[in-house]
Parts: sequence; structure tokens; C-alpha cells
Amino acid sequence: MTSAAPFRAIDVIRKKRDGVELSAGEIKGLVDAYTKGSIPDYQVSAWLMAVVLKGMTRAETAVLTDAMLNSGEVLDLSALAPKKVDKHSTGGVGDKTSLVLAPLAAAAGLAVPMISGRGLGHTGGTLDKLEAIPGFNVNLAVADFRRILATCGCCMIGQTAEIAPADRKLYALRDVTGTVESQNLICASIMSKKLAEGIDALVLDVKTGSGAFMKSRKDAESLAKLMVDTGQRMGKKVVALITDMDQPLGNYVGNALEVAECIDVLKGGGPEDLRDLCLELAAWMLYLGGASKSVAAGKKRSAELIANGEALKKFRKMVELQGGSVAGIDDPTKLPQSKHKVEVASKKSGIVASIQCEHVGTACVILGGGREKKEDSVDPAVGIVLHKKVGDRVKPGEPLATIHYNAEDRAARARQLIESSYAIGTRVPAKRPLIHNIIGNKAEKN
Amino acid sequence: MTSAAPFRAIDVIRKKRDGVELSAGEIKGLVDAYTKGSIPDYQVSAWLMAVVLKGMTRAETAVLTDAMLNSGEVLDLSALAPKKVDKHSTGGVGDKTSLVLAPLAAAAGLAVPMISGRGLGHTGGTLDKLEAIPGFNVNLAVADFRRILATCGCCMIGQTAEIAPADRKLYALRDVTGTVESQNLICASIMSKKLAEGIDALVLDVKTGSGAFMKSRKDAESLAKLMVDTGQRMGKKVVALITDMDQPLGNYVGNALEVAECIDVLKGGGPEDLRDLCLELAAWMLYLGGASKSVAAGKKRSAELIANGEALKKFRKMVELQGGSVAGIDDPTKLPQSKHKVEVASKKSGIVASIQCEHVGTACVILGGGREKKEDSVDPAVGIVLHKKVGDRVKPGEPLATIHYNAEDRAARARQLIESSYAIGTRVPAKRPLIHNIIGNKAEKN
Repeated sequence: MTSAAPFRAIDVIRKKRDGVELSAGEIKGLVDAYTKGSIPDYQVSAWLMAVVLKGMTRAETAVLTDAMLNSGEVLDLSALAPKKVDKHSTGGVGDKTSLVLAPLAAAAGLAVPMISGRGLGHTGGTLDKLEAIPGFNVNLAVADFRRILATCGCCMIGQTAEIAPADRKLYALRDVTGTVESQNLICASIMSKKLAEGIDALVLDVKTGSGAFMKSRKDAESLAKLMVDTGQRMGKKVVALITDMDQPLGNYVGNALEVAECIDVLKGGGPEDLRDLCLELAAWMLYLGGASKSVAAGKKRSAELIANGEALKKFRKMVELQGGSVAGIDDPTKLPQSKHKVEVASKKSGIVASIQCEHVGTACVILGGGREKKEDSVDPAVGIVLHKKVGDRVKPGEPLATIHYNAEDRAARARQLIESSYAIGTRVPAKRPLIHNIIGNKAEKN
Repeated sequence: MTSAAPFRAIDVIRKKRDGVELSAGEIKGLVDAYTKGSIPDYQVSAWLMAVVLKGMTRAETAVLTDAMLNSGEVLDLSALAPKKVDKHSTGGVGDKTSLVLAPLAAAAGLAVPMISGRGLGHTGGTLDKLEAIPGFNVNLAVADFRRILATCGCCMIGQTAEIAPADRKLYALRDVTGTVESQNLICASIMSKKLAEGIDALVLDVKTGSGAFMKSRKDAESLAKLMVDTGQRMGKKVVALITDMDQPLGNYVGNALEVAECIDVLKGGGPEDLRDLCLELAAWMLYLGGASKSVAAGKKRSAELIANGEALKKFRKMVELQGGSVAGIDDPTKLPQSKHKVEVASKKSGIVASIQCEHVGTACVILGGGREKKEDSVDPAVGIVLHKKVGDRVKPGEPLATIHYNAEDRAARARQLIESSYAIGTRVPAKRPLIHNIIGNKAEKN
């Protein structure tokens, strides 16, 4: 695929600037040269801006993904007998399904080699949540990752230096040059990392609503289509669920709080929206991975694996193998707890009309549950427990939420945001579906 | 004009990416920070690409020009009694009018503080032409520039380190990031340097046709309007002539050859197109500088200053003051001569329908008369003498052009280009006007 002619970055920049489709050789040439450090940041950032403003075809996006994927190590997990499946979410508030799904799919006999990220902006990150479990190590060498996967069927780590180094370099540059907002670049970034896991099938959870990066359903669907198409071009089974993120998912927002809520779900409890979404996503993982004959059968099987305790057992096993303390799994009150709590009471009587979801996420970041700057450390104990969600009736003085905090000044700022994020009305608001659409479900008929 | 809020490059990049008009503070903030080196190339190149693809308003362009102009020294020539005028051309092939115009306007009593550039791509550069005169020094300190200007009324030098350093830095970055092709950036680059000369009036010669950077009249006119508007916003008298560059100007292309042709014009001879264009441009310089009551009177006066030898005397004086040998001025055969000459003969009978002007310029670069790489040295002696121009009748075997060369292999490549650049037809082609349009001539009524 490498072109014989010497690679000239300036020609590729000009071509994209003029809206011309790039050849596979040109895209691979650029990614390879940048990964090796033989072209400077200032040429790549000009190219990235041209991509943001002129777009890319699906074929270009697939080639870019492939070039980024092959810039580093692609895990070969073919020695593992089960099908390898994973789930990726575009990020939200209270979006904690990975902690339920990885052990659930493993309990169904699949392998889940999950490489996750940290919190970004107002959204939480799976790695930050896992690290709320004392001792849990997300920085494993590939050999340990492979061994735990073989032993327990699931393992959850952070991106290693060997996986898609082009993505790490490009992402850092995009972050400081205003070139994050391109569906083509977002797709290539996500898919290159996920496909480097050596998986057979992938379920994408593309969020839409006030707490999502893609606020509109139209944007969420076009990103979903692009990612599904890119994955399918590479011979993977991929489906995308467009799911609601117009209010936080579940009732707990914050790292240790969310671990506790996941344990609730794995024990057969937990809030309805979180439980339902976990079962829907798990159903697709089982179906695409060949562990069930239909999506419906996958959902039934997933519910059984929760009811019979197998999913929780897998989670406990994984925590143990990754160095985490199981005390907090057996008794979630032993997970990190904040020193203080304060209730946010409603000033009005009525029905919750909406919750400005991004503000709740930002409130959690302010409490210390996320990062305002890249180098900030995260406080696992802080967060927000929501007592009222959209459609719930509320009386004056009744608590809307409880803030778990360790610093008074931060709590005051978070409280203001939480208060202003609740809109109380008089009528029952129209119910938004949990799942807006499913993209790529022709796979069901395969 | 500086904003009190801390300058954040990322915000300015994002804003321009989204097509939003930038404030004066934002544009000045970016230019100032880049000149000081406090923001990196990769942020500025992303911003430049956003400017290329999203454009700028006239107000933004004027602010950018002003910020670049004030990034360095702005000459204060107010101690000089005469009005200061200059001419700038967007570049062409055989485009040598500056060497006639500076002494001509000086002979009319104006001051011409001309800061020029070198050859770019297929086009020649005034500094390269002047340096074909043995000893001529274009690298003068500002004090010497000022002194010669006061003594003789004109002085021609290259850009100094003190003049518009932001432009030098931005231009170097644009050159390697595919961001040259923006009328807003071209305008700001040209106008910031010209206005740093401390002039009162400026005549722009915006070329259009096969040898110009702006091939279409529409593009040439929109660039002209932008530059005139920018200059007028800064309180300068500015007019732009849209002139033809569909075939080389005059008959000589090459540095010493072009000096010789200018001396011909200053002696009252020279080819009609070159002489006519010099008189038109000089007329506007005299008129805008207040040395004539009308453009027509300025043209008449310019013709007189050629006829009475005053313009040539000024040129000789300037050459002498800038260290050049006047032997070649008094007798142009003493200017550098190539070792060899070869004729390019016509193979057909007919009428010259067109001359691919850019190819003639490239042929001169190949001969060594321009630079293929920035660090190349220029051979002053080589070039092309055209014997036939558009509309001329030609017989088989009759010379179309003579190549002046010093290296056989270069001559062979140049010859091919010259041959292929001539199209010989059977009908008299429609005559293109020398001056297509004049932009900003409301100044005539001021």
C-alpha cells in the first residue's frame, strides 16, 4: 500500500484543502511519516483543519483508521477460543455500563479485551471508575492482559504505548488546534483503538442529548453510520445503538458511586434505565459474538446471568486478578466515601421537566471527580446522587440530589450547577426513549 | 487595542473554523503572540488553513494588515518634503516596470522608498534584476536608505529584518502548509510591507492572465478591491490597475536583459507594451502623489521626463548611490552577457495566437535566471529574447525567440518549453487590452 514516489506532505495538504479525495497511499504516507516524526506538527495541523472543513469520504475514513490502527501493535488474540467482543460508548454522564457489560459477556462465554479511556470534558471515564476500587491496576503489560483474559474472560485496561501511537499523537495535536470536531477524525480515533484489540465484533453506544458530545440525533446517527461502515469494511461485526443522554444514566454520578451502582445492577437491582441499557447492549454483544441465536435470546441470557450471580462472580474475579480489593465489591460501603454530604432541595412543587445533563457532569468535575486540566488527579469518593429524574413529582423542600464532597468551596459551586440544571414544570414531559435507533442491524440477518 | 483577557489561541482558531468574524483584539493577539514566539507554529498553521477555507471580512483583513505592519518598524519619512509614493506588482513574466517607475516618479519631484522582493515561482523579482547591475547593493541599512532617498528621490532595497517581521514568519509557514492561496492573507502580506515604507500613496499593478498568479480577471479584481480597501482604511491613497499578463511584458525576460530593456525605455525607446504600461502607472503615481493635476497630465509629464533624459539621470544617480557600476547603464552591452545564444525557430507559417506566459517564466528559471529552491543563486546573464509576440505573423524557420544561456542541458529544457509555449494559428487573435480595469479611481475626484 506504500507509494513508491517520495511522500510530500504539502501536496496532501493542498489536495485536501481543495476538497479532493486522497488516495490510500497519501493517507498512509501522512500517518506513517507523522508517527515516525518525519513531518512536523505544523503541517499535520493544517491538514487536520482541512479535514475538519472539507470532510472525508467513507473510503478515506476507513483508510485513515487502518493506517492509525497499523501504526502500532494489533493484538493477536486468535489463540483464545471464544469470540472476542467489545462495547464502546461515545461518552456521557453516569455512563457506567462497561463495568457491567465486560463481566456479563464474559459470563456468557465470550472474551472481552476492553481498552478504555479516562474522563474527557464533562463526561466520566471507565479507567477513573475502575481506579476507585482500591488497588485496581489498569496499566497492565500486554502479557498480563492476555493471561487475565484467558483466565477470566474479561480484562479492562488503559491504552498502552504500543496501541495506535498515531492516534495518541494526533489526538494531542487535535486537542490544541481546534480540530477535534470532525466525525471522520472521531471515527478513526475510536475505531483504530478498538480494532487494535483484535476483536471480532463491536457494539457501539452512540449517545445523543444534552449530556452527549453529539447533541442532535442527526449528528449521532451520522457518526454511528460512519463507525459501523468503517468497522464492517474491516470485516468486523459492528452495530451501533443510538441511546439517550438527555439526563444522567442511572442515579449515581462519580467514580466510587458509579462502581457501587454497577454492583447493584450485577446483583439484580439498580435503577431501571441503567439496567435496561445494560441488558440491551449485552444482548447485542452476545448475539454478534455468537453466544446467542438472536438479540432477544441474548437479552434473556444476560438477565439469567445476572439472576444466577455469574456476572457478579466474573466481575469479582476480574477485580481480584487486576489487583483490586474485593472488599468493596462484597460490601460497597467499603469503597471510598466522601467526608461530607449535602442535599439539594427543590424550591418548587411540580414535575421534573428536564435535567441539563452536561451541567451535572461539570458539577462532578468541579467536585474533583474529573479533570479540569490533564494533569489533575481525580477524587474517587466525590459525586452526585440524583433522587429525582425527568418525569418525577417533587414537593418544596424534597431533595433533588445529594452532593458527596470533600471541599466546601467546590461543593458550593457544584450545588449552584445542580440547582440550575433541574427544570421543574407542571406537566408530565414527553418520555424520551432509552434507545432512539439501531444502526447496522442488518447483521441480525447474517 | 490589546484585549485585557488572556489571549487563548485555541479560541481564535475555533472561532475562525466556525466561520465567525474575529475581533481586532483576537487578530492582534494572535499576530503579536506569534511574532514574539509565544504560540507554536502548529496552532498558527491550523488557523491559517481555517482562514483559507472560511475567509475573512474586509474589516478583519485590515486589522490583520495593521497588526503585521505594526509587528516591526514603520518608517517615518515625514522629514522628507515630497510626497512618498510607491508601486507594487503582484508579479509576472518580463514585469520590469519598477526600474523605470522609481526614477521617473523621483524625476517628477516625488520620493519613492521602494522595498521589493525576489523572484517567486515562475515570476522574476526586482531585487534579482537590480543585482544584475555589478555592485548594486539592495541590502542597505535604514539610515542609508533614508539618505539616498533624500539625495536622489528614489532608493530600491530588499525587506529588512525590522520591517513586518510577522509577515516574514507567517509567509514562511504559509509556504510549507498549503496556506498561500488566500486573498486575505496575500493582501495582508503585500499591504503590511508596503505601508511599513511610510508612504502617502500606492499604485497597485494586479496582473491577470496565463503568466499571473491570479489567472482570472475576476480573482484579480477581487484581490485588487481588497487591497485598495485595506489601504484606504489606513488613510492612504491607493489605486489598482488590472493589467494584462497573458504574454510576457516587453520582449526581454531575464535579469540583465530586463535591465537593458528598462534603459531602452528610459532613453525613449523600448517595446510599446512596456513603455505604455510604464506611462500609465507613472501617471497614477504622479497624480496620487500630487505631482500632477490629473492622470492625463501625469502621463504627459512622465513622457516629457523620459524625453528630456531626467528619468534616466535619476536612475543612473540611484545606481551610483547604491554602489552599482554605471558602465552598464551608459552602455548596456557592458551588463552581464551569457556565453551562448541559440534561436528557437518557428516550424509553421501563421500568426502567433498565444504565448503560454508561465512556461516562458519557468524556462527562464530553468536557465538559472530564477530559483528552483530558495537557496539557489541566480545567473544574471541568462534569459529569453522574444522576437514574436501575440498577433505577429511568422514564417517557417523565422526565429520566435533567442535563448541566452550558460549551460547546454538547461538550454535544451528551456527550448522545449519555449517551443511549446507558442501557439501558431491562421487568424488574427482578438487583442487583449493592456489595462483591463482600474479599481479605486474615485480617488481621481478627491
